[in-house]
Amino acid sequence: MENQIFQLQYAMDTFYFLVCGALVMWMAAGFAMLEAGLVRSKNTTEILTKNVALFAISCTMYMICGYAIMYQGGAELFFLSGIEADGVAGAEEAASYAPAADFFFQVVFVATAMSIVSGAVAERMKLWAFLAFAVVMTAFIYPMEGSWTWGGESVFGLFSLSELTENVIVDGEMTYYAFTDFAGSGIVHLAGAAAALAGVLLLGARKGKYGANGQINAIPGANLPMATLGTFILWLGWFGFNGGSVLALASVESANAVAVVFMNTNAAAAGGAMAALITARLLFGKADLTMLLNGALAGLVSITAGPDTPTALSATVIGAIGGILVVFSIITLDKLKIDDPVGAISVHGVAGLFGVMVVPFTNEGTSFAAQAIGAATIFVWVFGASLIVWAILKAVIGIRVSEEEEYEGVDLAECGMEAYPEFSSK
Amino acid sequence: MENQIFQLQYAMDTFYFLVCGALVMWMAAGFAMLEAGLVRSKNTTEILTKNVALFAISCTMYMICGYAIMYQGGAELFFLSGIEADGVAGAEEAASYAPAADFFFQVVFVATAMSIVSGAVAERMKLWAFLAFAVVMTAFIYPMEGSWTWGGESVFGLFSLSELTENVIVDGEMTYYAFTDFAGSGIVHLAGAAAALAGVLLLGARKGKYGANGQINAIPGANLPMATLGTFILWLGWFGFNGGSVLALASVESANAVAVVFMNTNAAAAGGAMAALITARLLFGKADLTMLLNGALAGLVSITAGPDTPTALSATVIGAIGGILVVFSIITLDKLKIDDPVGAISVHGVAGLFGVMVVPFTNEGTSFAAQAIGAATIFVWVFGASLIVWAILKAVIGIRVSEEEEYEGVDLAECGMEAYPEFSSK
Amino acid sequence: MENQIFQLQYAMDTFYFLVCGALVMWMAAGFAMLEAGLVRSKNTTEILTKNVALFAISCTMYMICGYAIMYQGGAELFFLSGIEADGVAGAEEAASYAPAADFFFQVVFVATAMSIVSGAVAERMKLWAFLAFAVVMTAFIYPMEGSWTWGGESVFGLFSLSELTENVIVDGEMTYYAFTDFAGSGIVHLAGAAAALAGVLLLGARKGKYGANGQINAIPGANLPMATLGTFILWLGWFGFNGGSVLALASVESANAVAVVFMNTNAAAAGGAMAALITARLLFGKADLTMLLNGALAGLVSITAGPDTPTALSATVIGAIGGILVVFSIITLDKLKIDDPVGAISVHGVAGLFGVMVVPFTNEGTSFAAQAIGAATIFVWVFGASLIVWAILKAVIGIRVSEEEEYEGVDLAECGMEAYPEFSSK
Repeated sequence: MENQIFQLQYAMDTFYFLVCGALVMWMAAGFAMLEAGLVRSKNTTEILTKNVALFAISCTMYMICGYAIMYQGGAELFFLSGIEADGVAGAEEAASYAPAADFFFQVVFVATAMSIVSGAVAERMKLWAFLAFAVVMTAFIYPMEGSWTWGGESVFGLFSLSELTENVIVDGEMTYYAFTDFAGSGIVHLAGAAAALAGVLLLGARKGKYGANGQINAIPGANLPMATLGTFILWLGWFGFNGGSVLALASVESANAVAVVFMNTNAAAAGGAMAALITARLLFGKADLTMLLNGALAGLVSITAGPDTPTALSATVIGAIGGILVVFSIITLDKLKIDDPVGAISVHGVAGLFGVMVVPFTNEGTSFAAQAIGAATIFVWVFGASLIVWAILKAVIGIRVSEEEEYEGVDLAECGMEAYPEFSSK
Repeated sequence: MENQIFQLQYAMDTFYFLVCGALVMWMAAGFAMLEAGLVRSKNTTEILTKNVALFAISCTMYMICGYAIMYQGGAELFFLSGIEADGVAGAEEAASYAPAADFFFQVVFVATAMSIVSGAVAERMKLWAFLAFAVVMTAFIYPMEGSWTWGGESVFGLFSLSELTENVIVDGEMTYYAFTDFAGSGIVHLAGAAAALAGVLLLGARKGKYGANGQINAIPGANLPMATLGTFILWLGWFGFNGGSVLALASVESANAVAVVFMNTNAAAAGGAMAALITARLLFGKADLTMLLNGALAGLVSITAGPDTPTALSATVIGAIGGILVVFSIITLDKLKIDDPVGAISVHGVAGLFGVMVVPFTNEGTSFAAQAIGAATIFVWVFGASLIVWAILKAVIGIRVSEEEEYEGVDLAECGMEAYPEFSSK
Repeated sequence: MENQIFQLQYAMDTFYFLVCGALVMWMAAGFAMLEAGLVRSKNTTEILTKNVALFAISCTMYMICGYAIMYQGGAELFFLSGIEADGVAGAEEAASYAPAADFFFQVVFVATAMSIVSGAVAERMKLWAFLAFAVVMTAFIYPMEGSWTWGGESVFGLFSLSELTENVIVDGEMTYYAFTDFAGSGIVHLAGAAAALAGVLLLGARKGKYGANGQINAIPGANLPMATLGTFILWLGWFGFNGGSVLALASVESANAVAVVFMNTNAAAAGGAMAALITARLLFGKADLTMLLNGALAGLVSITAGPDTPTALSATVIGAIGGILVVFSIITLDKLKIDDPVGAISVHGVAGLFGVMVVPFTNEGTSFAAQAIGAATIFVWVFGASLIVWAILKAVIGIRVSEEEEYEGVDLAECGMEAYPEFSSK
């Protein structure tokens, strides 16, 4: 009977991972719709193509080597046989859930990180250069930094974020505060934003975005219902993203933790949405829908590093601060002429950094220093590595479409088809 | 081992609540897409903004005081500390699932009630007046009436619907028939429609909807794929709405009940869709897609008061009657010049009332008198309270946009951006 | 305590079926969006109407008699009372999950088979003729062939695919290789494509698709974000489609199987997407989004007959071959002047056949001969029966709209409303 109980627990935790993983996979649709709604119609087919293709590439590259880098250590690296039907290499010994469920849950995370990039470089980056970057990002850059915190041990013997972060003496006892990033405000969102920023800096702004006399021209998205749908999809998928990161369900303690994470994830999104709506109203005099959407997403990113410890009210406040930050960040980036068509760097980078740094306010087992070291390490690694990869791509095949292609829209140049061929453009 | 079994049951019921709650949250996207598809393009950004913002407001207000009013009684009212990370106030004693999961499941219900309102008042109501109403509705009006049936005890010592409903002598035994509303045909849907009706009556019809000579002008929705998507989202989300309302999963009896509810919810939607399609075909000579969609939704609303007791065939019939009713209701409301752009009052009010009243046909533990008293109580309270709030808002800040704003579309006036800036309007 | 463990297992398996069933129901939305995005705007309302209506019809006809035909044998055939609130006829004896959950999971499968048809006959088939076909397909044609493999025994005493398939002597032992179709590459997808092909052959191509001099004219879809959304919805729903087909969760063995199925389903979709993208790039010089989407879907169809046995790498390869096949199939069908506006016959028929035939490469308990016999049986039955039904419909009420209606678009003729009334067409 002991064994029967173990079997039920095993099945329950496995199913929990699979349901949460399916929700995270659904976020790929959310990013696709959000970005398709926020670009101009002439660049819509291409951004859709990028989003579907990057998901496919992410899943495949992470299977081939990313998962091994992130969780297995160097020994089994690059062994395709590592992921077999009856299990995932190395994870089988003490498994309390199906190894394949663990792989499934992790593989959809890397796609999330990569989806962040596509929005920021939209409307002017070459499709195949982007996909080439996706290969490196999901096979190597993301798994490396992921291994430093979530992998448990150093890959290639380089170092561990745990070792970098500080020790503190409290009450006469040695207390160790490791870098803590529950579901990935830093590891996933800040990382995605760092890769995006590197690309945007090398790529430059879209033609016409910034005028000769310093004016900033609004380039409105072609389909706001799509963008809103994308936001709702992401909101829903985030329950899997954060909720699944408890990594266990089948006990009172775990179940309570998962429930609190769901509650707080929702509360933070609500707080971010309301705060951004009000902030935009005060700044611009209008109820700005795109700021509202980005506010909700910023709230979600902000709570992601620590959704398990705040009260629902605190989670709402954390989300709200993220929602306010994102409005000012979007304005600031435009002043700096860093052109991010969908606000991805602000939503995932600025709110991601905030999310990492706000954890110690509600989680006693963390410290600002450890959080700052962790965030800096992630940013430096991902930004630096990405900059090198983008630079190589720029030198070898080019990363930006021609001026004429940009003017006509990348859809015709890259994909040979329009997204809305029957709806006339102004 | 007894304890291990308890832990598994606790985790299973918690996860069941969370999955169902996530599905209900997803209904917010359904309402947003449905309404965005059924209004004109010039009012689309604003309806999207309302739908995202009302969800955020609902979640926050219900956390601040709505949940306490509905489930805790007056004692802990308005105590923010009531919802803490490690539990939700008052619900902890005999919990067989995570308190936070209970809160999460309830909080998404209030958003559903509020989402119903936005469609009915679309295309002419001021955005901020609407959001102000949302605050009162979700903090007070809905939680009050919800407490009378689902809260278990009277709040503020006013009264309980249980006490109002009748006692009957059957076979020499005293049998008590309480008002029964399984998942909320009355408590959620009729309530939402009552609030909407009050708003619509004070607001008046859209310019051009009703001609001087009594003619009714069709104002077609701008994006029917969006409206269809919204209906499918609602259909999916309803499995969580009704299925989660069994309130337990982890026993043979509960699991059977949840399964029957899923089966019947689907059957009723199918019945409503087919019946409305045929009814519209007979009346108008065409396969009217919007009637088909509203028929499916009416079927869902109709079964919501009692999805646990009918056979699948009975559920199909109940849904079908709801689907027929909604077609005639939409026609009738137009004759009465009650302008409801998306048919929300018919779908949620008329079918909601029907759903409450049809329960005794399949559930022996209910009576028509008790159901009628319950429905009347809900309607009188929500309609009356809403009318007062709408009237105050009308007097203080106004609830209707100016004629010029209405003509140009509320998107530019309220949000400063078009939903489809590149697609030219006729 | 033994009983408590049984109850937990029962509840867990029931919930697993319900969640997977809800995901499969969601595929109906996926087909609707995919097809709505790939047709011209003038035929969009009608394809949406068909998709919602066919789902409603499928659920109702399968309840009335389809489920009884497929799983109960002739005895209880056509007895409406067979599906009751407290159980589903005949399935109760040894149930380890709620009978209603089994029905719910099966009923959404038949809708999937029917959804495949609507895309292939889009833009020129009469709406009511299509719905009449849906009645026969979901009440009889699909349940008959389904019973031969999944029903366990022959209905009407005709025959069983198990009896048809071969016996082999291996190592001195008699080994029996039955036709194996895990989640329905053949039973659902090839069957749907066979019904579609029969309809397309009788219906003929759309006006203007094939020129007098043999040229093939591209007729681009009106809304590619919708089509992409539909693909993502199908991708997500497929986790329920394949994952639920393990038919049990609550043991280590079952949970591992479900997890492997999720992992492989995702891997095959990724493989199909990448392979189709590259194939189309090599053939046409462009990153063809519609081929990318069809590639992902073909990958999903290809793995559906055996997602439980391959490694993740093998699943990726199987999906990739499906993705390549679909590109060549679409080109070939066009050369044969078989006009399939959304590529449904290629995606579900060609990749479905491939999926059935590829099973023996990874599953030792199967043989090519048995798979070929099974696929041929399904195709002959569904194609033949469908051809007869389509022919009768053609003779009696006609299956094709008039030339004028086709030119003006079927939306106005059949539904009396445009899908995008405000967006001007070219």
